[in-house]
Amino acid sequence: MMKINRRQFNYALAVALSSVPFRSVHSQTTVHVSGSRIMDHLFALAEFGKNPQGGASRVAYSDADKQGREYVLGLMRAAKLNVSIDAAGNLIGRRRGSAGGLLPLLLGSHVDTVPEGGNYDGVVGSLGAIEVAQTLAENNIRLRHPLEVVIFQNEEGGLIGSRAMDGELTDKELDLVSRSGKTIREGIKFIGGDVSKLSEVRRRKGDIAAYLELHIEQGGTLDSEKINIGVVEGIVGINWWDVTIEGFANHAGTTAMNNRQDALLAAARFIETVNRVVTSVPGRQVGTVGRINALPGAPNVIPGKVVLSLELRDLDAAKINMLFERIKAEAEKIAAESKTKFNFKEINVNIPAPTDPKIRSLISDAAHDLGLTTKSLPSGAGHDAQDMARLGPVGMIFVPSVGGISHSPREFSRPEDIANGANVLLHTLLKLDRL
Amino acid sequence: MMKINRRQFNYALAVALSSVPFRSVHSQTTVHVSGSRIMDHLFALAEFGKNPQGGASRVAYSDADKQGREYVLGLMRAAKLNVSIDAAGNLIGRRRGSAGGLLPLLLGSHVDTVPEGGNYDGVVGSLGAIEVAQTLAENNIRLRHPLEVVIFQNEEGGLIGSRAMDGELTDKELDLVSRSGKTIREGIKFIGGDVSKLSEVRRRKGDIAAYLELHIEQGGTLDSEKINIGVVEGIVGINWWDVTIEGFANHAGTTAMNNRQDALLAAARFIETVNRVVTSVPGRQVGTVGRINALPGAPNVIPGKVVLSLELRDLDAAKINMLFERIKAEAEKIAAESKTKFNFKEINVNIPAPTDPKIRSLISDAAHDLGLTTKSLPSGAGHDAQDMARLGPVGMIFVPSVGGISHSPREFSRPEDIANGANVLLHTLLKLDRL
Repeated sequence: MMKINRRQFNYALAVALSSVPFRSVHSQTTVHVSGSRIMDHLFALAEFGKNPQGGASRVAYSDADKQGREYVLGLMRAAKLNVSIDAAGNLIGRRRGSAGGLLPLLLGSHVDTVPEGGNYDGVVGSLGAIEVAQTLAENNIRLRHPLEVVIFQNEEGGLIGSRAMDGELTDKELDLVSRSGKTIREGIKFIGGDVSKLSEVRRRKGDIAAYLELHIEQGGTLDSEKINIGVVEGIVGINWWDVTIEGFANHAGTTAMNNRQDALLAAARFIETVNRVVTSVPGRQVGTVGRINALPGAPNVIPGKVVLSLELRDLDAAKINMLFERIKAEAEKIAAESKTKFNFKEINVNIPAPTDPKIRSLISDAAHDLGLTTKSLPSGAGHDAQDMARLGPVGMIFVPSVGGISHSPREFSRPEDIANGANVLLHTLLKLDRL
Repeated sequence: MMKINRRQFNYALAVALSSVPFRSVHSQTTVHVSGSRIMDHLFALAEFGKNPQGGASRVAYSDADKQGREYVLGLMRAAKLNVSIDAAGNLIGRRRGSAGGLLPLLLGSHVDTVPEGGNYDGVVGSLGAIEVAQTLAENNIRLRHPLEVVIFQNEEGGLIGSRAMDGELTDKELDLVSRSGKTIREGIKFIGGDVSKLSEVRRRKGDIAAYLELHIEQGGTLDSEKINIGVVEGIVGINWWDVTIEGFANHAGTTAMNNRQDALLAAARFIETVNRVVTSVPGRQVGTVGRINALPGAPNVIPGKVVLSLELRDLDAAKINMLFERIKAEAEKIAAESKTKFNFKEINVNIPAPTDPKIRSLISDAAHDLGLTTKSLPSGAGHDAQDMARLGPVGMIFVPSVGGISHSPREFSRPEDIANGANVLLHTLLKLDRL
C-alpha cells in the first residue's frame, strides 16, 4: 500500500510539474509532451500481467504480453499513427513526412518484461515514443522525414524483434523455447506475425535515417549523481564464457588438506581474481560470475568439478579481450597451485554498438535547451538499439532509475524524469529532422 | 579388462603370499587367516549389485543389498556362527565363550555401499571378521569371551544399524526416505528386521567387552608412506553448517563494480578463508566447502544469495570449535567489506569418538608380532565403531587404500594388505580375550 501511495504522490507531483514552464528556456522548446498522460498509460499498461507483489510478468508471447500489445496498439492509433504488425510481430506506427524521398526516423523500445519484472524497463521508451507521436499530432507538427514508432517484440528474450529486422534471426532460433513455453516460431504466430514472411521485415544498412530509444538507465549512476539525462555512448559488448574447472572428487574426511584437488577452492580463487583484474584498470568495464555449479555437490565430498559463467562487458572490444587474457593467465597460476585444470568455452559474443557522435550531441543540446543536466555513459545492458545500429546511426537517452534497480518489481523511475526523457526524445527528433 | 587382469594377478600373488610363513615370528602368531579365502568371498560378494563400469551399487534396502546379505549370512553359517537378524536388521553371528559371565567381544563392519561405490569399503572388515571366526572354528580355538560378528545394516546411509544398537535411532528418522527409495522403516522390514521390537536391539554402556573393526583407510596416508597397518586413534568429530550469504541481486551489465553486493564474490572469499584458517594450524583437521548454490544463478545477474556447506572434522571437538570461531570472525570482515550478511546454521554435529588406548597398543603389538609396520592416525570418515564407542572400548584397524580413493569403483586395497589386516584383527582379538 505504501508503494501505491508513493506512486500516487509522485504522479500528482508530475502532473503539477508538467504545468511548470521550466522547459521553455528557448522558443523551440515550447512544444512538450504530457508527462501525466505517459503516466496514465504506464499505470494502465501495468495492469496487464500485474503481479500481486508489484511489478508485472509480461513475458513475450504470454497472454498478458498479447493483451498489453493490444492496449499499446490502441495508444498508437490514438496518436494518429498508421499501425501494422510486421511479419516478425513488431508493432509499427507510421506517420508520413512532408518531404519526398527521405529515409524514416525511427523511435522505439519494447513492452515485454522479464518474469516478475517491473513497469519501467522498455515501457518508458515505448510510451515515450508514442507520446512524442501524439504531441506531434496534437501540435500539427509535420516532420520532413517519415516517422516510425516501433514496439519491438521479445526484447527480453534475446532482442528477437529487432534482430528479425536486421536479418540476424536464424531458423534454428525460431525453434528455441521461449520463457512463455512457446517456441519463438509459435510465439510470433501468436502475436500476429508470420514467420514465412520474415524476409519482408528485413532492412539493410542505410535503410533508416536514424533510430532513437528512450530507456531507464537500469544502473544507479544518474540517480546517485542527480543527473537528469544520460547520453548513451554506446551499448557495451558482452562476452560470456563457460569455465570448467576439473579437480578430483574425494572423501572430505579422509583426504588431507595438502592432498586435495579441490575444484571449488580453485573456483573461489578464480572468482576473486576476476573481480581483482576487472577493477585493476580504470573505466566502467564490469565482470561477473553469476552462475556456479559444483559437483558432486555434497557437504562431505571435495568438489571434483566446477562449471561457472564468466561475463565481461565494455564499450571497447579490445579491452574485453585484454581483461580476458589477464584472467586466463591468472587462472593458469591458480590451476598450477591447486592441481586443477581450467577450460574456457566461449558461449556468446555481442560486439559493442557505439551510438552516433552527432546524435549524442543533439541529445545533449536538446537536454540543455530544456534546462536539464546530462552525463555521457555506456549502456551496460543490451537494447534493441544495438541491432538498429547495424542499419544506421542510433542514439539512446537514459533517465534515472531509483537505486539502479531493474528487472525487479522494485524498479522505479520518477514521473518527472520520465517526462524529461520524453521531451528530450521529442526535441532530439525535431533536431534530427532538420539536419 | 585391465582391471580384472590386475586383480587376478594380485589374487594369485595373495594366494602365493598366504603360504609364506612371514607371520610366524612368534609362536602365538602361528594361527593365521586365509587371505585367499577372503578374496574369494570378496569377489563373490562383488557380483551383487555389480556395475558395468566396475565397483558395485549395493545401496541399503535395495535388492542387491538383500541378496548380498543373504550371501554373507551363508558365509557366517559356514564359519560355524550361530546367526540371526536382529530387530534392526543387523546380521549377528554368535560363538560361545568358554568362561561364564564374560561380556561379548564384537567384530563388525558393513556390506552396504554408496551408489556406484567400490568393493572394499565395509566389505573388507565384514569378510575379515567372518574369516577370523572361521579361522577360530577351523583351529578349534575357543575364546574365553563370547564372540559376536556383527554386519551392521545401512552404514552408508547414516550408521543406521549401529545407531539402533546404541539407542540413538529416532522414530522420526525411521520415516526418512533412504537412497533405495524406501523409508528406513520400510527398509528394515524389507531386510528382515522388525521396527516394533527395536528396543530389544538396544545395548547399554558396559554391555560389551570390546568392539574391533577392520576397514580400508579411505585416505592415502598408509599407501603413500608404505605402512602395513593403521592404528586408529579415533573417529573424528564432524560439524556441518549451512552458511547463507545475503547480498543483492542486480543487473550484471548496469551495476558498477563498486556498487555491487555480490554474494558469490563474498562466498569465494569465504571458501578461500576456510582453507587458509584450517591449514594455518598444525594437525590433521580438515575443512571443506562441498556444496554451493548461488541465486538466481544466471550469467548476467549478480548473485544476491549464496547457500553453501561448511564441514569441519577433527579428533578434538575443542579444535573444531576454535577453527569455527576463527572462520566466523573472518566471515564478519568479508561481510563488512562486501556489503553482505553471513548466517551460520548448525546442521549436524558428530562428536569425536576416541578409540581405547589399551586396544590401540594391542593392535600395534599384534601387528609388530606379525612383522608389520604401523602408524597411528585418525579416521576422517565415520564408522559404526563410533556408535559402539558409546557401549564400551573400541579399536579400529586400517589397511592401505591405493591412492586413498574410496566411495568409487576405483577404490582398491591389495589382497596382501587385506590378509594382513585380518590377521591383525585375529591376533588383537586373541590378545583381548586373554586380558
